[in-house]
Amino acid sequence: MTLLEGYIGIDTLTEQIRKKALRQGFEFNVMVVGQSGLGKSTMINTLFQSKVSRRTFNKEDYFCPKTIEIKSISHDIEEKGIRLKLTVTDTPGFGDHINNNNCWTPITKYINEQYETYLNEEISIKRRKRIPDTRVHCCLYFIAPTGHSLRPIDIEAMKRLVKVVNVIPVIAKADSLTLEERDKFKRIIQDELKQNNIEVFPNDQHEDLDDEEAENNKWLRKKLPFAVVGATDSYNVNGKNVLGRKTNFGLIEVENENHCEFSYLRNMIIRTHLQDLKDVTAQVHYEAYRQRRLETIKSDPSKQETNGTVIDMVTPTPSPVGSLRFQKTANASPRSSQATATPANHTPKVSPANNTSKTAPVVANSAPHKAMPNANGQSVQMNAKAKAAMAHSAKNGGSHHLAESKI
Amino acid sequence: MTLLEGYIGIDTLTEQIRKKALRQGFEFNVMVVGQSGLGKSTMINTLFQSKVSRRTFNKEDYFCPKTIEIKSISHDIEEKGIRLKLTVTDTPGFGDHINNNNCWTPITKYINEQYETYLNEEISIKRRKRIPDTRVHCCLYFIAPTGHSLRPIDIEAMKRLVKVVNVIPVIAKADSLTLEERDKFKRIIQDELKQNNIEVFPNDQHEDLDDEEAENNKWLRKKLPFAVVGATDSYNVNGKNVLGRKTNFGLIEVENENHCEFSYLRNMIIRTHLQDLKDVTAQVHYEAYRQRRLETIKSDPSKQETNGTVIDMVTPTPSPVGSLRFQKTANASPRSSQATATPANHTPKVSPANNTSKTAPVVANSAPHKAMPNANGQSVQMNAKAKAAMAHSAKNGGSHHLAESKI
Repeated sequence: MTLLEGYIGIDTLTEQIRKKALRQGFEFNVMVVGQSGLGKSTMINTLFQSKVSRRTFNKEDYFCPKTIEIKSISHDIEEKGIRLKLTVTDTPGFGDHINNNNCWTPITKYINEQYETYLNEEISIKRRKRIPDTRVHCCLYFIAPTGHSLRPIDIEAMKRLVKVVNVIPVIAKADSLTLEERDKFKRIIQDELKQNNIEVFPNDQHEDLDDEEAENNKWLRKKLPFAVVGATDSYNVNGKNVLGRKTNFGLIEVENENHCEFSYLRNMIIRTHLQDLKDVTAQVHYEAYRQRRLETIKSDPSKQETNGTVIDMVTPTPSPVGSLRFQKTANASPRSSQATATPANHTPKVSPANNTSKTAPVVANSAPHKAMPNANGQSVQMNAKAKAAMAHSAKNGGSHHLAESKI
Repeated sequence: MTLLEGYIGIDTLTEQIRKKALRQGFEFNVMVVGQSGLGKSTMINTLFQSKVSRRTFNKEDYFCPKTIEIKSISHDIEEKGIRLKLTVTDTPGFGDHINNNNCWTPITKYINEQYETYLNEEISIKRRKRIPDTRVHCCLYFIAPTGHSLRPIDIEAMKRLVKVVNVIPVIAKADSLTLEERDKFKRIIQDELKQNNIEVFPNDQHEDLDDEEAENNKWLRKKLPFAVVGATDSYNVNGKNVLGRKTNFGLIEVENENHCEFSYLRNMIIRTHLQDLKDVTAQVHYEAYRQRRLETIKSDPSKQETNGTVIDMVTPTPSPVGSLRFQKTANASPRSSQATATPANHTPKVSPANNTSKTAPVVANSAPHKAMPNANGQSVQMNAKAKAAMAHSAKNGGSHHLAESKI
């Protein structure tokens, strides 16, 4: 360490960074996965104290999707001058069918598609100053409060999910369990996760932590999965307004640590680990996807020799429905258009109709496929060779399948 | 904007980021360019209040390099818990010869080489979590205090430099000018920079600034180039120790705004614009290099079809001295080894011998050429096709020449 003979002012650096971060704002993308009726939307609305997620099941607009849909909604929120673009991705239909074989596939596919979009932007020749980040930073997995054990679908789905995204499991609607049942259920789940090598977030191996942080993570891992209760109604308790659920037996205060573990979850996701969730997504999950993708190209020259641009080196393979291929050319990020729609209007509540940015039923295999836009928004035209390579790839199940199959 | 119904805690984000920044530390790379005898080393030592730069011209070890050398020295400094790895790159020999034709070429070549190193790391399949940043963030250009005008070499050199790096011009040894001479000289220089389209730092077109920042930059541009005096000796003035130069006519206090403009320079480089300098380097200069480089490959397929890996797509073209090509295989960043040498020993003053990390005389064209290490530190072997492409490229003057020629 070189000694300084006087004050020079490099301690201003954190303030310089803070100012820039404030000016730019933040992005955070959270996904909820779990059977219907486990209070996923309510939990998100409780976490962010606003109507950021709507219930997909309601009396006026009854529907039970026949396929799994992926729906993303973006909201701009602000607190003490910090602006956050929050995107909530819902997965209605997951686990709700008679046959739930591979019901996690559309979810991992969606997650990988976001990496693919990011990768295409990252490797394009003329790229934007800041790549819009639609990558899923956090996946909240809702476990039904059975008190028995994880269901096979939970184990199989989480096994796949933890390979591509930060998974935080929660025991939903935990007010249905007594404290004894809850603690026993937790221990069983922890054992099952361990037996199946399911590494949920936080996982220390990805980060250089100081002692305090490592200790905190150790404590968190012992408490996982948090047994939570969501509620958006507030009640007056000793002159103070608290969020809670009024039952016949009394008021369950969601932020009261004696009643449930909601506050642990909120503290972790928002107040201590939000930036960690983003960093692990970028440095671990995205990098792993990028590496798999580039190695696939390297090992199969037919996927490399397209039209000779670097962009096409990692072009996403199209879905068989070719006509949809250039549909989204002008909109590289599925949610970037959404982002401008919501904040510009300063609408506290946006109607469901214009708020659902992406609906991708999987059975029809017609997920809108990202074309290959370069930074100018122009679609990169492919030559015959490229098309042949793509046809070859599509025949083999497409790129996402390739990534998926390694999991 | 979606309304929040209670406090959720996203204002903790800046603190989360600050903690991570503190843990990781910062990197800052500054280059000094100017004729010998203008006090470049003294100025750097004054800016950073330490012996981070040594004089290349001294009585014991007299030498006047026949070629322009590029020398980088890294130091770890710390202030109030903020750690900074500071690298100072000196360019002794610049403008010191009878014929100074193209004397800026080794400098722009060095700058581009750092971009090339970074680019190779960025596009490799298995890449490091954090790419060591050896890119030059700031180039201090020293103008001789003639009082007349810029010399042709200043105009020609700065014309090239501003295309690849943030240039901050300073009037060196400004104590030799009266205030009237100084102000007149400044106006002349400002006019000459304008006439020659030399856009020095700060240049607002690269950043989205708020009103206060834009106003501050406007003020700075009016004051540029700062007329500075460096000094590392301190004197007692009214009971306070101040840095100064004792002349026959009195004491020149370097931090006194009535004596010279050193404090403006220090405030800009360290206290208000250090992060800006880094961001503009990454988002403007590096991106421009990357784009030129990838477009060169795109337009000349012989440079693309190497051994089929993405790494080789933008392999640096070797210098004609082929035997040196794999010399630095194990050391992707020319200064990363230096970084571990200095702080580990906790040596406040390091002798010149083990402190000069890179010396690249240009006439001999034997600049140690970066091999193509992947993240494992393994050198990527080239096949015959790749070697042919490289030979082709070297024949045409190499990649840096290509980039350079567009300037």
